[in-house]
Amino acid sequence: MSCFQVRTDLALEARESIEKTEEGLRGVTVEEYDHEEIQVHITKVVISSKNGAKAMNKPMGSYITLEAPAMQEADEDYHREISEELARQIRSIIPRADEEQSILVVGLGNRDVTADALGPGVVDNLFVTRHIVREYGKAAYNKERMNQVSGIVPGVMAATGMEAAEIVRGVAGQTKPDLIIVVDALAARSTKRLNRTIQITDTGIQPGSGVGNHRNALTEESLGVPVIAIGVPTVVDAATIVGDAVEKLTWEKEGQSGLRIDSIRTISELNNMYVTGKDIDEVIKRLSFTISEALNLAFEL
Amino acid sequence: MSCFQVRTDLALEARESIEKTEEGLRGVTVEEYDHEEIQVHITKVVISSKNGAKAMNKPMGSYITLEAPAMQEADEDYHREISEELARQIRSIIPRADEEQSILVVGLGNRDVTADALGPGVVDNLFVTRHIVREYGKAAYNKERMNQVSGIVPGVMAATGMEAAEIVRGVAGQTKPDLIIVVDALAARSTKRLNRTIQITDTGIQPGSGVGNHRNALTEESLGVPVIAIGVPTVVDAATIVGDAVEKLTWEKEGQSGLRIDSIRTISELNNMYVTGKDIDEVIKRLSFTISEALNLAFEL
Amino acid sequence: MSCFQVRTDLALEARESIEKTEEGLRGVTVEEYDHEEIQVHITKVVISSKNGAKAMNKPMGSYITLEAPAMQEADEDYHREISEELARQIRSIIPRADEEQSILVVGLGNRDVTADALGPGVVDNLFVTRHIVREYGKAAYNKERMNQVSGIVPGVMAATGMEAAEIVRGVAGQTKPDLIIVVDALAARSTKRLNRTIQITDTGIQPGSGVGNHRNALTEESLGVPVIAIGVPTVVDAATIVGDAVEKLTWEKEGQSGLRIDSIRTISELNNMYVTGKDIDEVIKRLSFTISEALNLAFEL
Amino acid sequence: MSCFQVRTDLALEARESIEKTEEGLRGVTVEEYDHEEIQVHITKVVISSKNGAKAMNKPMGSYITLEAPAMQEADEDYHREISEELARQIRSIIPRADEEQSILVVGLGNRDVTADALGPGVVDNLFVTRHIVREYGKAAYNKERMNQVSGIVPGVMAATGMEAAEIVRGVAGQTKPDLIIVVDALAARSTKRLNRTIQITDTGIQPGSGVGNHRNALTEESLGVPVIAIGVPTVVDAATIVGDAVEKLTWEKEGQSGLRIDSIRTISELNNMYVTGKDIDEVIKRLSFTISEALNLAFEL
Repeated sequence: MSCFQVRTDLALEARESIEKTEEGLRGVTVEEYDHEEIQVHITKVVISSKNGAKAMNKPMGSYITLEAPAMQEADEDYHREISEELARQIRSIIPRADEEQSILVVGLGNRDVTADALGPGVVDNLFVTRHIVREYGKAAYNKERMNQVSGIVPGVMAATGMEAAEIVRGVAGQTKPDLIIVVDALAARSTKRLNRTIQITDTGIQPGSGVGNHRNALTEESLGVPVIAIGVPTVVDAATIVGDAVEKLTWEKEGQSGLRIDSIRTISELNNMYVTGKDIDEVIKRLSFTISEALNLAFEL
Repeated sequence: MSCFQVRTDLALEARESIEKTEEGLRGVTVEEYDHEEIQVHITKVVISSKNGAKAMNKPMGSYITLEAPAMQEADEDYHREISEELARQIRSIIPRADEEQSILVVGLGNRDVTADALGPGVVDNLFVTRHIVREYGKAAYNKERMNQVSGIVPGVMAATGMEAAEIVRGVAGQTKPDLIIVVDALAARSTKRLNRTIQITDTGIQPGSGVGNHRNALTEESLGVPVIAIGVPTVVDAATIVGDAVEKLTWEKEGQSGLRIDSIRTISELNNMYVTGKDIDEVIKRLSFTISEALNLAFEL
Repeated sequence: MSCFQVRTDLALEARESIEKTEEGLRGVTVEEYDHEEIQVHITKVVISSKNGAKAMNKPMGSYITLEAPAMQEADEDYHREISEELARQIRSIIPRADEEQSILVVGLGNRDVTADALGPGVVDNLFVTRHIVREYGKAAYNKERMNQVSGIVPGVMAATGMEAAEIVRGVAGQTKPDLIIVVDALAARSTKRLNRTIQITDTGIQPGSGVGNHRNALTEESLGVPVIAIGVPTVVDAATIVGDAVEKLTWEKEGQSGLRIDSIRTISELNNMYVTGKDIDEVIKRLSFTISEALNLAFEL
Repeated sequence: MSCFQVRTDLALEARESIEKTEEGLRGVTVEEYDHEEIQVHITKVVISSKNGAKAMNKPMGSYITLEAPAMQEADEDYHREISEELARQIRSIIPRADEEQSILVVGLGNRDVTADALGPGVVDNLFVTRHIVREYGKAAYNKERMNQVSGIVPGVMAATGMEAAEIVRGVAGQTKPDLIIVVDALAARSTKRLNRTIQITDTGIQPGSGVGNHRNALTEESLGVPVIAIGVPTVVDAATIVGDAVEKLTWEKEGQSGLRIDSIRTISELNNMYVTGKDIDEVIKRLSFTISEALNLAFEL
């Protein structure tokens, strides 16, 4: 979960907080529609100017969000219908999706922390083909056209001593994929989007604005090929949740600085803490299948 | 984690909230001391009357708490010195600890949810001996006196369709242990005791006051043999954390009912959510070793 | 894997070794047919007399074997068509399969040894319903008729200190299922049936003829309700494989006792060793899904 | 386990098969001694000429083998005394072991196949320091001199679509270690060395003689820095075991070609099969600790 080092908000949430203060915004277009049959709400935010990027506090690029409340619930077929819609959206953002290419899927996060195991889970279920196509040719699959799909779970820095970005850069340098897809669990600002929202973006993963953090970026700029990031918020930062609750109270009542200091103390105890649901193991298992199946479909030619 | 169905507070916390309102309490004795060399603070609460039990909202019995801030940090020897102190405290509460007996260790919780995997982790590292002693005798260990130790991880109801208590009752009925020790992750009321406090009690695990919940108890009454429960708070209930923060604000300022309703709404979204630390995988791995090693030591004759 | 303590051969193999010496056998009927569309060969052996049981060295009862070479290969839908046929065969052997009942599925074996993790894998993927039906009624599933399905993974004696049979007897005693289904990995006599053969029998699991071993039986006699065993051979005993190879050589050449002693020495080194395939992780994952899906289908009313 | 693609024999075994036919061998020196106190037998084979390399069918370099029967048995302290001896031997082969350096440990093998999970297990227990030293300096450890240790588990080609060697080359290219240590499970020729023999060599891992296999090498030549390989035989190739048993029989009796063909048929069925012990989960867990602890000790300055 890059959220563990980096605050990775949803573009959707950034847009909402902006709408409160401004009417419209140049360089940011928003398009929404419902896929009613499968109860999926899709939002496309395109940030096309530096001003838009600044206002949204997000890099220029496309952000597609699928909101699918059904994903929170169990389903016999791990929500195949959502996988299919997700596959369509992923294809819409893949450059030259109809041409044969080599694709590296990166599963970020910590396999040993349930809420953070989404990326590893997706790679575990991925249909990898690169080694077979290279060894035996496409004939091994009875296909005339095949993508070469590979996958890696770089692990977390506490376990490897290396940045995930270092590992991905190294592997990409050796295996020369045409496209990299990074899957990660995200932190949302509120519980209402948890485990039901999938964000796809062609901006890759950008670490926070902290100086010297560029070594951690997983972007086209740092990796040399297009990078698509797929994320699902599975946790809320604990300090954010308490902070927001306190904010609501103190906003309307002025002159409560003493109380606020008290609350800030509570909040600082919450650093490095996160909030997640009690059935998170089931949720991660299901989400991993939904996304890996979508990738498998999206990669078919 | 029984905390997922049952609110399992620390006796320590119950006592603290009482001290605020009353001076002293009949039928409740408290004894505290520091084991300075290893920086462990030990508190023994004994509830010996019904009044005491009512005031504390806890069943009559002994509650030993070890607070060991060092447990939060990594250590080469998984805190052997804390294991040794913990072993002493466990032995002090085991009936007839010097006599040979058969002991069943139950690891409650969900192996697939990191913060809830403490119980299963302890049983994984336990030195089980029952099958060897029964098959080959104590000679197999070159010992004249041996306890017969067995262990079970009953799993969670969502995975088994059965109450953990049903499984434990069944297994105990067949294998007739003289003593049952139940290990579980707990929910604390605040973050300050997280992952550094171990509670040992001879009251077993009592489900909440809910009607009809007696089938879930893991107590001497329900199992027919003494039951010792060992618990470590690894999570805080998310609603509790936000509730407490809000409480602090509204306590001193009256007439803010509108704001409170708003906050209550936030809090109700947090039902079934919990707060835990970002390095919870390391923490659980370490705590499991510390406790299983303490049990291994405590069971030596 | 009960094969680790108990030699659990396939009835199919027992029958084959008999056919070599006798023509026909009273009290043993054999029925075979091909389900050509899905390339599954089905054999039903019914042993209906004590003589038949003695000749086959198997208890009286029904033995259904599905041979499905396709199971050895990967498939997008984890061989749904085989799951459906398997579900039909399981239903054919379940007493009163059309009536509502309570069914306990037991996953034998060791989760930490890949070739032995079939039983645990099946229970992991099982659709358990008992706790929901008991808590909320069948309405929770929008059904008028529902079985109550529960599942348990008792673990291996080295980890629990208890016989799997003790745990199952205890759990069954508490939860009173009408039917128990035991899933286990088996040892075959040769590699040719590995990972492609599923055996279903209503005789449960009988330990070897060793004295005093009755405590280990998982049978209707020991558990008080019908017990169906489902097994797949995933390993071959190493000593058997070498023994068979040597047997072939020495059978036709007499007077080679010196050589045989040499071979026997080799073979005795192989005690407690087994032979399995190099892709056993993929195989077990796939087989677990095929069987758990078959159970889920078979339990629908 | 590179044995899954590559036959990785022990130098010890190569030497033994040679001794049968020749007395002594130029360019190959052998030194043996017992560390009696801890019952470890150490053999150092140095191959210093091309002729020696040809005769041994091994690349030029040093091969240290520790035979420690005790490793097969359980121990309270995961055989700390063997870890200490192993650490000494590892340090003896590390170039400039007393100087600060950056060391990448590679855990080859398949985490999901028990007998092949040795490499991943070692990296899981490794004390990684690189990220801390780079971020906070050696002061974080209160040390004046520290190695920078990192670790990676590249996974198997069936799961990643990439050669382990591609991943290691990429990661090494980015993180520039001074030394690479590769840990892997090996295949032995006979069961007698299983799980009790550790081989350390400065030749890295060389794939078989197959053409075009150089891309798979993990050697100083392919990676640009010294590569030390540490291996433990945990399996025997099934075909080898049967082949050897048959060989013994047919060696002395001539003219049995018909029988041999029959046996060869048996053996070819055993391709891609391996033989391992029934307690392999315990064995791998223990061996992983012994080796990772040895590395932790060897890396201390």
